[in-house]
Amino acid sequence: MHKVARTVAPIHRLLAERWSPRAFRPDPVAPEALVGLLEAARWAPSAGNMQPWYFIVATQEQPEEFEKLLSCLVEGNRRWCGTVPVLMLTVARVQDTGGDENRWATHDVGLAAMSLTIQAASLGLYCHQMAGVRRQHAAQLYQVPAGHEVWTAIAVGYRGDPESLPDDLMERELAPRTRKPLDSFVFSGSWGETPAWLPEAP
Amino acid sequence: MHKVARTVAPIHRLLAERWSPRAFRPDPVAPEALVGLLEAARWAPSAGNMQPWYFIVATQEQPEEFEKLLSCLVEGNRRWCGTVPVLMLTVARVQDTGGDENRWATHDVGLAAMSLTIQAASLGLYCHQMAGVRRQHAAQLYQVPAGHEVWTAIAVGYRGDPESLPDDLMERELAPRTRKPLDSFVFSGSWGETPAWLPEAP
Repeated sequence: MHKVARTVAPIHRLLAERWSPRAFRPDPVAPEALVGLLEAARWAPSAGNMQPWYFIVATQEQPEEFEKLLSCLVEGNRRWCGTVPVLMLTVARVQDTGGDENRWATHDVGLAAMSLTIQAASLGLYCHQMAGVRRQHAAQLYQVPAGHEVWTAIAVGYRGDPESLPDDLMERELAPRTRKPLDSFVFSGSWGETPAWLPEAP
Repeated sequence: MHKVARTVAPIHRLLAERWSPRAFRPDPVAPEALVGLLEAARWAPSAGNMQPWYFIVATQEQPEEFEKLLSCLVEGNRRWCGTVPVLMLTVARVQDTGGDENRWATHDVGLAAMSLTIQAASLGLYCHQMAGVRRQHAAQLYQVPAGHEVWTAIAVGYRGDPESLPDDLMERELAPRTRKPLDSFVFSGSWGETPAWLPEAP
């Protein structure tokens, strides 16, 4: 499968084989699987164990709820998310109860979202996380309380046929995954210095 | 092992068994394992595939580099991090090349950090992520460029004997892990509304 990550040291298959498709099968996600995804998020670490993450979840089984959540995505994401079996919004609690900023809130939402994504991978499910969210619209629509911010959306389901996508999205679906080389972001000693133990890119 | 996550639906063992110890064995982490951790981070998803994460890594094999990085932790973390085999700082690129804010940068550092943590778990390694970082000190010490922010630290190694810790930390090491119930952060339809498919907490 040409989407598998190419690495200079082996990584676990759940990490190597995960990617973010746009073509999903319409098959529903079983409730137990969905609960497992949220349990994975629940047990993520967080600063001071504050667990500043929230998930608003909509499935195709509840069409009104699904349409409501779908309306929170930007047009470019609504193009392919209408038939995804499960959509979620993530929300970060960016202020603690005393009104102080939790600087790590969105970072910790990321920790929880990645746990959820890897749990999904362990069940043969794929997640596509999206920054393209109408955040103000979503906050108003769901009456998200003060001190909380809508952050991302996540599509969840089984991978579908790339040919079900419009041509431009199909092209992206079939393109290889790319990442910057390790030596562009892994340093030791000082900024920009490559660690001696880092192998050269192949 | 009493630290295993208690869940109402099963989750993958790499997620259920992961936690954040303070007692680490002094055994070094093999370079290939360390590279695997960073490859796992590298292949995390990010907004617009911007990959806004950086890792400054120090091992006990390079004592000067290790002391330099250790000095970036707050006192409460220096207490137990002096003998950890590997320490890292994470840095987020919070502005893109055009000077525009990347609002998702620290969230995406979280995605990468969780990938790294799960890759570690797959090798029998544990990570302890820390918010308690002297961020300004670290930014100056490593001359982190403008547009980038030091975010967290991560200790990595094999789990050690809790009795090697001071009494107060040993107590925390042996305490059960706790999380908020699912229905406190998983909603559907509207804010605060529990999805019908969510089982009651046991």
